[in-house]
Amino acid sequence: MLGGTGYTGGELIRLLTAHPEIDSFKASSRSKAGELISDSHPNLKCLLDQRFIEYESSAVDADVVFCCLPHKASMKVLEPLIESGHRVIDLSADFRFEDEKIYRENYASHACPMLLGEAVYGLPELYREEIRKTSLVANPGCYATAAILALLPLMKQRGLDLTRIVVDAKSGTSGAGAKPNVFLNSSETAANLKPYKVTGHRHQPEIDHILSRLNPDVSVNFTPTLAPFTRGIQETIHIFGEPIGDPRKAYEDHYKNECFVRVVSDSFISNVVHSNFCDIAVFYDEGKRRLVTVSCIDNLIKGAAGQAIQNMNLMLGFKESKGLMQIPYHP
Amino acid sequence: MLGGTGYTGGELIRLLTAHPEIDSFKASSRSKAGELISDSHPNLKCLLDQRFIEYESSAVDADVVFCCLPHKASMKVLEPLIESGHRVIDLSADFRFEDEKIYRENYASHACPMLLGEAVYGLPELYREEIRKTSLVANPGCYATAAILALLPLMKQRGLDLTRIVVDAKSGTSGAGAKPNVFLNSSETAANLKPYKVTGHRHQPEIDHILSRLNPDVSVNFTPTLAPFTRGIQETIHIFGEPIGDPRKAYEDHYKNECFVRVVSDSFISNVVHSNFCDIAVFYDEGKRRLVTVSCIDNLIKGAAGQAIQNMNLMLGFKESKGLMQIPYHP
Amino acid sequence: MLGGTGYTGGELIRLLTAHPEIDSFKASSRSKAGELISDSHPNLKCLLDQRFIEYESSAVDADVVFCCLPHKASMKVLEPLIESGHRVIDLSADFRFEDEKIYRENYASHACPMLLGEAVYGLPELYREEIRKTSLVANPGCYATAAILALLPLMKQRGLDLTRIVVDAKSGTSGAGAKPNVFLNSSETAANLKPYKVTGHRHQPEIDHILSRLNPDVSVNFTPTLAPFTRGIQETIHIFGEPIGDPRKAYEDHYKNECFVRVVSDSFISNVVHSNFCDIAVFYDEGKRRLVTVSCIDNLIKGAAGQAIQNMNLMLGFKESKGLMQIPYHP
Amino acid sequence: MLGGTGYTGGELIRLLTAHPEIDSFKASSRSKAGELISDSHPNLKCLLDQRFIEYESSAVDADVVFCCLPHKASMKVLEPLIESGHRVIDLSADFRFEDEKIYRENYASHACPMLLGEAVYGLPELYREEIRKTSLVANPGCYATAAILALLPLMKQRGLDLTRIVVDAKSGTSGAGAKPNVFLNSSETAANLKPYKVTGHRHQPEIDHILSRLNPDVSVNFTPTLAPFTRGIQETIHIFGEPIGDPRKAYEDHYKNECFVRVVSDSFISNVVHSNFCDIAVFYDEGKRRLVTVSCIDNLIKGAAGQAIQNMNLMLGFKESKGLMQIPYHP
Repeated sequence: MLGGTGYTGGELIRLLTAHPEIDSFKASSRSKAGELISDSHPNLKCLLDQRFIEYESSAVDADVVFCCLPHKASMKVLEPLIESGHRVIDLSADFRFEDEKIYRENYASHACPMLLGEAVYGLPELYREEIRKTSLVANPGCYATAAILALLPLMKQRGLDLTRIVVDAKSGTSGAGAKPNVFLNSSETAANLKPYKVTGHRHQPEIDHILSRLNPDVSVNFTPTLAPFTRGIQETIHIFGEPIGDPRKAYEDHYKNECFVRVVSDSFISNVVHSNFCDIAVFYDEGKRRLVTVSCIDNLIKGAAGQAIQNMNLMLGFKESKGLMQIPYHP
Repeated sequence: MLGGTGYTGGELIRLLTAHPEIDSFKASSRSKAGELISDSHPNLKCLLDQRFIEYESSAVDADVVFCCLPHKASMKVLEPLIESGHRVIDLSADFRFEDEKIYRENYASHACPMLLGEAVYGLPELYREEIRKTSLVANPGCYATAAILALLPLMKQRGLDLTRIVVDAKSGTSGAGAKPNVFLNSSETAANLKPYKVTGHRHQPEIDHILSRLNPDVSVNFTPTLAPFTRGIQETIHIFGEPIGDPRKAYEDHYKNECFVRVVSDSFISNVVHSNFCDIAVFYDEGKRRLVTVSCIDNLIKGAAGQAIQNMNLMLGFKESKGLMQIPYHP
Repeated sequence: MLGGTGYTGGELIRLLTAHPEIDSFKASSRSKAGELISDSHPNLKCLLDQRFIEYESSAVDADVVFCCLPHKASMKVLEPLIESGHRVIDLSADFRFEDEKIYRENYASHACPMLLGEAVYGLPELYREEIRKTSLVANPGCYATAAILALLPLMKQRGLDLTRIVVDAKSGTSGAGAKPNVFLNSSETAANLKPYKVTGHRHQPEIDHILSRLNPDVSVNFTPTLAPFTRGIQETIHIFGEPIGDPRKAYEDHYKNECFVRVVSDSFISNVVHSNFCDIAVFYDEGKRRLVTVSCIDNLIKGAAGQAIQNMNLMLGFKESKGLMQIPYHP
Repeated sequence: MLGGTGYTGGELIRLLTAHPEIDSFKASSRSKAGELISDSHPNLKCLLDQRFIEYESSAVDADVVFCCLPHKASMKVLEPLIESGHRVIDLSADFRFEDEKIYRENYASHACPMLLGEAVYGLPELYREEIRKTSLVANPGCYATAAILALLPLMKQRGLDLTRIVVDAKSGTSGAGAKPNVFLNSSETAANLKPYKVTGHRHQPEIDHILSRLNPDVSVNFTPTLAPFTRGIQETIHIFGEPIGDPRKAYEDHYKNECFVRVVSDSFISNVVHSNFCDIAVFYDEGKRRLVTVSCIDNLIKGAAGQAIQNMNLMLGFKESKGLMQIPYHP
């Protein structure tokens, strides 16, 4: 795997270390090559004796390559690997849009647009069969995962106004990464709520892009807020209109065969963090004709590294839940 | 004042203790009469040597009576006081609706509906002159305060769809009161977000009721979430449509003479807690035609006891900000 | 198992649900018999479909009985089970002292003192072989586990004054249990530190009792403080004197074969919570002749349910770490 | 004042803004000269319209100069000011030791050692009269303030072993400053406890230095731990021996005329933060012959900027508590 010093990389290393089907893996780091992985991730002390390696594309010899590099860096490093036939799971946004225009408007011009058509959006609940067969998975963004899972069962619902969906998202600080800055300084985040990119966050077009494949009416209005804890995303989603039938039943039916999506009465951060589960609660206000769904995930697991492992399991023919059945905690 | 053991009562005692125009006050408590106030509110140790008294209506002799009793208890105790000519500031919901029907649908049947017409809704930024003259102030709910202040400047705006306003509210735990229960147990709230009364919270009709006096189209869709800190409310408010002119300018104009409402770039919990300020930030997404306002207050101060003092200042002819200019803290 | 609605009981249920050698288990509850276990522990939603049962001693048919009842209740329920030959792991304090006098002074008079001599103190790092053979394990207290593990390697060290050990302990709120009270109300614990039982906490004699078996000089001075997070205990232990040799080396040697004790550079809460590990860091101040050890555990896992599973594994001949190798998280 | 962008500087600006005897002040910043102060400290939005100025020693014209620069930078800038007769309150460690050797061993060699003898250690509870007369106050360290206040009443107590005092300190993150780094990143501090400088912290010699003036036996053993909240220091102090008389009474007598030291039953962070108070609780364990005192302050107020204002009040002949009587909050 590429880029193991960040929080997503660390989580992937934790999951790979404990995965029963994985014999060995290597993790690279530009800044920490040669250092013990457990110096960067002290949760692994005494459990993993490996060091970060220097990345050399020619030396890659793995069933799957995970890439945890930042947006823009990722595509440059991955292009030769993909072209030489490696199977790749990229956790950046670089391959999430088959339309280069959307990528360009939200990130930058793309280094290898010809590869965009090959990538599969790595949400198993939507593209399970495609993931099994592809050699390039674009792992979804954390906010996008929670939102898309919470909206999928409504894509064919009549009576709802999908053109004015409000997604009010709250995220723990680990979603902003391991690199320190003033915004993330603990004295600035403790006992606080900080909306940021109130309009124009880049996961908004990602959600629109994926869901409009299913229903061209979809338009989400996304606002994220930084919340004072480390892990977890909660999205409260407001949809106007009058659904036909019992909406909770629609969710239960849609997800009845999914092992990581739970339709619940209360979707709280505490019930999903440290696990790969997504909990979704559904409410309907008859008087106001408003449907509300609340969706929670662990941003680093179902929102990043856990979903990447889920995709790896599919690509390599393992049981989809292998290495991912960690039960969340109470309290 | 009546009912001094809760968090709102304690905050009122703190503000009265420090208020430069207040010579003396008495605080009653049914359960703690005779005990030191500072045993219930240890922040006051060595600063206030008073004890809670037993409440006797006949003995009330005060320029203003504050009532911090719960809904339903409040009106029963206040009825004789109001009728005997005392000036009263009630912090419960009992006198917030002039229409008894709304109260009945959301709380209970009213004990003294004939008094409803006399009460003034105690939001100085809206009813300053009425508050000066009345003898019965219904102090607004905490969520309602933050929402109404954030929406007031839009009531005459054209181009906005006021029929589908989404108010996504987050509150610290002190809003739920001092009485312990499982939902508020610290192990259940730490590092967590817990939506509750996702539809049907009783502050929704309060906001609708007050704002529809200004614009009959208004209909808010309110969802609160319990957040892991003690003080503060943040409301992210989503309004669809295309406002005429610069919306931030509209807010600045509307509030240019208000001492407790600040129109800011970023409205964070940390910048208002421990003070009577309300911070409002305004954003507009041209692409999606969505206006977003973020409104923050300290739920126990501007959302309860501080606003009650602000109302007292108006009623007694003091400077409106007297005893309330505590600057918030950083960090 | 007996008593499954509390936090320790819930943690035990989580561990049993995921344990690869456990085919089935039953959990009783006096107050919630007949209800879904996952209604009390919503982390288990969709993962465990069982209900709490009513406890009947005659119906007990299990390889091991876990008891999560409170002190005093535990011994009364367990006496007939033990006498009829069941193997029991008791998580209360009722069987931790072979000397009835210590129990009486700190808890109450004992209901079945004749059984005290049969119980083994369930700290595998000290009594592994005895645990394998016994039918009654007294699972250690959470604070005692962290303290004893941090002091064991010093019991034969010369040069230290073991008569004046200071154990300054900090605990998350889950150690105080699931039952709500004012002290644990989230508004009272957030952003706070609250020392309690500053002198005379009942884990002090437990630590003294166990360690004085190894060195009669030992006398610990214990003070706990409630800290603002859910899980984790950290104990900073100050010992005066001049140790012979490198003290960190002594710890590494002592624990080199233990799978759950890690001798580390920094012992932080975050590196052990959600796991069965105990992290110990060792420092020596030459100038002041003071040795400091910092010991961290998850109070509900290594400090309670995880250690109980560790004991069960020993009693039933499973690998000691079976079902307990969950890697902690970063961040 | 010099250096206004950090947390201590910001707190001083907040206190000066609200101080009834202060007509005007200026705040300098090397990095932010010309910018609005309220851009760095958004709590001051709409309340303070000033900008940071560039510092020029020749232009200083103030009754008192506060210096919030870091250790080592402070003395260099202050030397010419002091020599030209300005009255100075320095919040760094540069003038806290009259013995240059201690400064050198713990910080660096001193730039103007001849000035060390002129400085008064700015703890009003100990050096009130000296502070009134001096033109150079060395404002105490935050940890030192809490520890010295908690130990002062014991300096003449017989029966206690003052050579082995353990000071186990816990501090919120604001004590580590506003400059971001990995150790302070919110994902690394939330729900965590991180001991640091377990031996050898520089406030240890400061406490020893001041207290040994009163009793040459004193030797403290100091260990600090970073705790997951923004403001507040709590020190649990363990002293062996048998005090003569009631120790709590000794504290009450010692502090009976002090307005900012409160002898209380429970010394909790929550009861002092956002105020200039120091709360001290006293416990004695007869069985173990251990005295425990728990001391709490707000590290940025009584531990820094508030104490500096208290010193200014003394130097300028104002009432000592002027501008500092903000009551703490509950909850």
